[in-house]
Amino acid sequence: MCAKLKMGMVGGGPGAFIGRIHRMAAELDGDAQLVCGAFSSDPERSREAGSSFHLAPDRVYESYARMFEVEVGRPFAQRMDFVVIATPNHLHYEPARLALESGFHVVVDKPMCFSLEEARALQEVVERSGKILAVTYTYSGYPMVKQARSLVADGRIGRVRKIYAEYTQGWLSSNLEASGSKQASWRTDPARSGAGGAIGDIGTHVAHLAEYVSGLSITHVNAMLNTFVQGRRLDDDSSMLVRFDNGASGVLVATQIAAGEENNLSIRLYGDKGAIEWQQLEPNSLVVRSPEGPVEIFRTGRVYLEEAAARNSRTPPGHPEGYIEAFANLYGAFFRAARAQAGGANIDLRDCDVPGVTDGTRGMAFIEAVIRSAQSDQKWTELV
Amino acid sequence: MCAKLKMGMVGGGPGAFIGRIHRMAAELDGDAQLVCGAFSSDPERSREAGSSFHLAPDRVYESYARMFEVEVGRPFAQRMDFVVIATPNHLHYEPARLALESGFHVVVDKPMCFSLEEARALQEVVERSGKILAVTYTYSGYPMVKQARSLVADGRIGRVRKIYAEYTQGWLSSNLEASGSKQASWRTDPARSGAGGAIGDIGTHVAHLAEYVSGLSITHVNAMLNTFVQGRRLDDDSSMLVRFDNGASGVLVATQIAAGEENNLSIRLYGDKGAIEWQQLEPNSLVVRSPEGPVEIFRTGRVYLEEAAARNSRTPPGHPEGYIEAFANLYGAFFRAARAQAGGANIDLRDCDVPGVTDGTRGMAFIEAVIRSAQSDQKWTELV
Amino acid sequence: MCAKLKMGMVGGGPGAFIGRIHRMAAELDGDAQLVCGAFSSDPERSREAGSSFHLAPDRVYESYARMFEVEVGRPFAQRMDFVVIATPNHLHYEPARLALESGFHVVVDKPMCFSLEEARALQEVVERSGKILAVTYTYSGYPMVKQARSLVADGRIGRVRKIYAEYTQGWLSSNLEASGSKQASWRTDPARSGAGGAIGDIGTHVAHLAEYVSGLSITHVNAMLNTFVQGRRLDDDSSMLVRFDNGASGVLVATQIAAGEENNLSIRLYGDKGAIEWQQLEPNSLVVRSPEGPVEIFRTGRVYLEEAAARNSRTPPGHPEGYIEAFANLYGAFFRAARAQAGGANIDLRDCDVPGVTDGTRGMAFIEAVIRSAQSDQKWTELV
Amino acid sequence: MCAKLKMGMVGGGPGAFIGRIHRMAAELDGDAQLVCGAFSSDPERSREAGSSFHLAPDRVYESYARMFEVEVGRPFAQRMDFVVIATPNHLHYEPARLALESGFHVVVDKPMCFSLEEARALQEVVERSGKILAVTYTYSGYPMVKQARSLVADGRIGRVRKIYAEYTQGWLSSNLEASGSKQASWRTDPARSGAGGAIGDIGTHVAHLAEYVSGLSITHVNAMLNTFVQGRRLDDDSSMLVRFDNGASGVLVATQIAAGEENNLSIRLYGDKGAIEWQQLEPNSLVVRSPEGPVEIFRTGRVYLEEAAARNSRTPPGHPEGYIEAFANLYGAFFRAARAQAGGANIDLRDCDVPGVTDGTRGMAFIEAVIRSAQSDQKWTELV
Repeated sequence: MCAKLKMGMVGGGPGAFIGRIHRMAAELDGDAQLVCGAFSSDPERSREAGSSFHLAPDRVYESYARMFEVEVGRPFAQRMDFVVIATPNHLHYEPARLALESGFHVVVDKPMCFSLEEARALQEVVERSGKILAVTYTYSGYPMVKQARSLVADGRIGRVRKIYAEYTQGWLSSNLEASGSKQASWRTDPARSGAGGAIGDIGTHVAHLAEYVSGLSITHVNAMLNTFVQGRRLDDDSSMLVRFDNGASGVLVATQIAAGEENNLSIRLYGDKGAIEWQQLEPNSLVVRSPEGPVEIFRTGRVYLEEAAARNSRTPPGHPEGYIEAFANLYGAFFRAARAQAGGANIDLRDCDVPGVTDGTRGMAFIEAVIRSAQSDQKWTELV
Repeated sequence: MCAKLKMGMVGGGPGAFIGRIHRMAAELDGDAQLVCGAFSSDPERSREAGSSFHLAPDRVYESYARMFEVEVGRPFAQRMDFVVIATPNHLHYEPARLALESGFHVVVDKPMCFSLEEARALQEVVERSGKILAVTYTYSGYPMVKQARSLVADGRIGRVRKIYAEYTQGWLSSNLEASGSKQASWRTDPARSGAGGAIGDIGTHVAHLAEYVSGLSITHVNAMLNTFVQGRRLDDDSSMLVRFDNGASGVLVATQIAAGEENNLSIRLYGDKGAIEWQQLEPNSLVVRSPEGPVEIFRTGRVYLEEAAARNSRTPPGHPEGYIEAFANLYGAFFRAARAQAGGANIDLRDCDVPGVTDGTRGMAFIEAVIRSAQSDQKWTELV
Repeated sequence: MCAKLKMGMVGGGPGAFIGRIHRMAAELDGDAQLVCGAFSSDPERSREAGSSFHLAPDRVYESYARMFEVEVGRPFAQRMDFVVIATPNHLHYEPARLALESGFHVVVDKPMCFSLEEARALQEVVERSGKILAVTYTYSGYPMVKQARSLVADGRIGRVRKIYAEYTQGWLSSNLEASGSKQASWRTDPARSGAGGAIGDIGTHVAHLAEYVSGLSITHVNAMLNTFVQGRRLDDDSSMLVRFDNGASGVLVATQIAAGEENNLSIRLYGDKGAIEWQQLEPNSLVVRSPEGPVEIFRTGRVYLEEAAARNSRTPPGHPEGYIEAFANLYGAFFRAARAQAGGANIDLRDCDVPGVTDGTRGMAFIEAVIRSAQSDQKWTELV
Repeated sequence: MCAKLKMGMVGGGPGAFIGRIHRMAAELDGDAQLVCGAFSSDPERSREAGSSFHLAPDRVYESYARMFEVEVGRPFAQRMDFVVIATPNHLHYEPARLALESGFHVVVDKPMCFSLEEARALQEVVERSGKILAVTYTYSGYPMVKQARSLVADGRIGRVRKIYAEYTQGWLSSNLEASGSKQASWRTDPARSGAGGAIGDIGTHVAHLAEYVSGLSITHVNAMLNTFVQGRRLDDDSSMLVRFDNGASGVLVATQIAAGEENNLSIRLYGDKGAIEWQQLEPNSLVVRSPEGPVEIFRTGRVYLEEAAARNSRTPPGHPEGYIEAFANLYGAFFRAARAQAGGANIDLRDCDVPGVTDGTRGMAFIEAVIRSAQSDQKWTELV
């Protein structure tokens, strides 16, 4: 018997949407278990959270610093192996840095940091620490996204010419932050969210997805940012024309004021031999078009899938998997990487299909390039 | 801190589809944990399974009888609280009976037993034992199925006149059992599956779903059973006209020879004021039609849902939930019932929205009525 | 220049749904033109109708008998070539007979006659007359239905095992006939509609479609007919289990009380190698499933279609064609047959892909078999 | 009896896609009839075309100039009432001008002219002539597009904030013009198509649709034009960020290199109270979203539609109408306008819901603004 990996958590107390998701996703396959946490800056709230998660009181901490300090001293069989950081963006860098320097692997939500500067600093910490940092670009965990990436890499749609990707949400179409919503408050607050609003919260998903599926890199952006809701201090809507390094043209949209939309992320790629299309709202189907033959729909769990898609599903065909399972796929890859490293392997996360600090830094560079572009009268801004 | 519920498992070793699902579903919300199991009749395989599930060797047993005997003697803080029975149908009754009589709650897969006779005997055991037995009619766990049931109960579509429900699979369209598939072998073997093939394996889901959503009871069946694959000894295809107790007319289909289909379960109900439609392959949408207005699509996670639907989802709108989450909803209700009973409450599973022994017995009665009908020249056979 | 074919019409005055459809469909491709009509039994209404259709007053008649008599005497270049009968069912046989005996081709709506007896008599008249009689089983005119038929004939889905076809409408879910609706009144009146209600009006479409696409014949029916709306004298709902001549099993549904449904006709066929599915509400797509590969969607107008589908569309891919175009495809085939016959050919309508008197008679036999079955306690009734 | 309107045609001989569409659409409702044409610059081909359309030889002309000259001299009861110009773009202005000056109404395909300069000249001719010129922005003829426009005008989605519209085709993803395709040749030839490729051919549809549905005007464009196919001399791909006069933000895409796509035109509008979405490939549905309630799907032919949608369909709900019917709706409105004018009314085409010379000129201005923007390093170019 090899033990489950032991997970600690920073933030993610009751009421936090993404904390719960992290717990379900990390534990889904029975390979990890929450053992400790600093769930809130309010000690009482942290204790309550720990209790609701069935944790022993001595594994619930008043601060992440204290948690790292105590956990590092526990015997190996009990000690936390990795920590999940599920706090607002301004509280990513510091706990991540400290965790890495204390010898723990880290899983951090996107965007990875508050600023590109922080991201670059964190990159150095990761490199020095020899530990693994994963960034939860969740949507790249879907099996059909991996199938799309494999098909594109295999040349199925030929040379990519045009990419359209969008992430359309409606939940910030009114002034939700004024009504006390925690989720809305920090996301629309420059002091906690960083320089980007919608572009940081979901624009980074779009950019990552476009690059992940295509295997290409965005080189230039031509962006329009808007703030439609009165009094809001960050963008709540973005549209971008982009160029990729192979000459392909792109259109990216990330908006949170699309009243009535839920969480409508989709991507289409057009190559000289065909097209590929995926929609997160129907995540178990992947549409492939060609000029010559019928439309083809690839489906999760089927025998004909590429290996990367096949190993990232849990159920027979037609038993829908969703968001939590996609999230769990990121964790699964992270766990394999962590165990491999523990076994002495020299790990490059890209080989493990885990988004890491490089991807996280790129996301921050993307946000800052878009903001620079939006403020410029020049059409194109380089993404470096 | 209240402890997690402690789960044991009979069957469900590696390779077993449904065992893994049970583990993921039961543990999804962090309220239960696998602590022991008798995963295989082969002790070596059972040990390997236990190890892969990160169990201590002394919690892995060579037989369910031994497991119940040992677990019952453990201190309360360690002892198994409930057992999941994930074996073929001919091995449901005996472990369930013994578990109940040993004082454990039971979760058993559908169909509940090998025969109606066994089901009736089990019903008596449950009543005597005072323990809870849940039957995993998984599809009733989907939030949009619960929304459908609530809308129908609220009169949204008026008096129900016609119900169409189907469960169309293709995986047995060829002679898979001849090629050594474990899943196919026992399901097509009368000695392990019982008198029904497709009608037992998935027909029971259709019948349960139709009754669950409509709130009605099937009174008569007019059935055609077929065996299309050469050499197969049980039905692999069924079609039924049925009558409900309010005079409604129904058409039910359950087939496993629909080559190319995955797991296509759907239901439509037509009342005198409108229609309601749900498809398991797109489980987060519920379609409601009326003669006067636009088609309405209800979606998982939205604010306007009825309480039964709202409390059975975990993610914000547009973050798809699927089969594992639906399964977990059954477990969640079962856990609430078990805790309530432990707290002294007198539990009727129907009030807790958990399918129980009554539903399981009804499923067995349905199978036997369909088989009688299929063998008869008379048009209608009563379901009693 | 060859002249357009000259069309007369019996019935189909303003307000008549299907009369207008016939005119649009017949004239769509510029190969025929309405030249005369007896549009109503009320001479004034007939005149008004003719005027609204831009006809000269002397080509508008007070009765079909008079029309046939006068038209037959006109010079060839002006004379009506064929007559469309767009009256309720009880007024199909007599005008059809007289038209044929007067030397005109006939297009008649389905069901072809009031009774099977009339149908058989009409069959004799057609044979004696040497003229062509077409029955507008409209849905067989859709290009994707023809593609389905071709694919099935080519063995694409292997040996057909199971057919599911349904025609679900909601417009008669309330007592519309009581509120003066012309369409509802005659369809629910045994004196004008015949012995079948929904089963005659739309059940015949379902049966024809199932046989047309599969190339099989229904041999036995096991039917349930219902009348859900109080006071209605004919069935408004039907469900049938059927057997086909190759041993395939079928489920057919035709209902007009599915409140909220529009005109939801669909068919699915399952063979031992795959499945095929078509839905009239999205008529330009045809779904083909196989156990091994991705789902395939064939689309109207694409280069890869079979000849029968290719020649029955008018627009490039992605320019949707609909019901009127499908109807026009029947007319196109009828015109080709009529011109070929005029050119001396010996025509079998089946070769021309035109539903004719044989299909019409079969439809009447189907209605009568279903009604016999519904009245019987025996499970199976032969369709002869 | 009032006579049908008599139609002449310039271009549109056999093989021409759009000529055939014009004939079917114009004649669909039985209110117009093709009576003459100059179908080709090759007299022999023109004669053949006329014969295939069942025209008398003396109504087939060797040139449009000759046609106008002769037709104007015919007695009123025979004389052409309007002419359809179905030639490549460089042959729009001259026949349109001459027809108007000869006293005929004109229907011309989009883009209206070869250049903005021509468009402005034509606008003056129209005004002087007192005749009607309609431009076939086909997609505005769909009933659900009209429903969308009405709902937006009624405030259903509140103040419009964001518009996404795309027109994605794949037919020019390879060098089709090199293989002799007539359709491809002229569209990719600057001498016949004008300064715009995809942006002229389909970009004008997108811009018109966005303005038509929203009731807004584009004020600024920020465009990227690409030519992906080697050797092609005009753009085959375009993406644009745009601004509307109410401050709304837009993203428009028009591309003909989306390999595998058919004719995928769609539009979505997001307002502060909800969203509206239409897709040409499923034209009989209109999706309306709101933050509070279920998604609503409006459907062609239903009783609850706004008047503009209701009067533009021909069939009961669920009998799909398509592209030809949408085209026919433009003709229907044009005919009503022409008859009203003949009756002495002073016609503003906007009131008649017919796209006219103003819309056509705006389309040309859009093309030229996009091209200017694409050539500029400045982000925004004004559309004037």
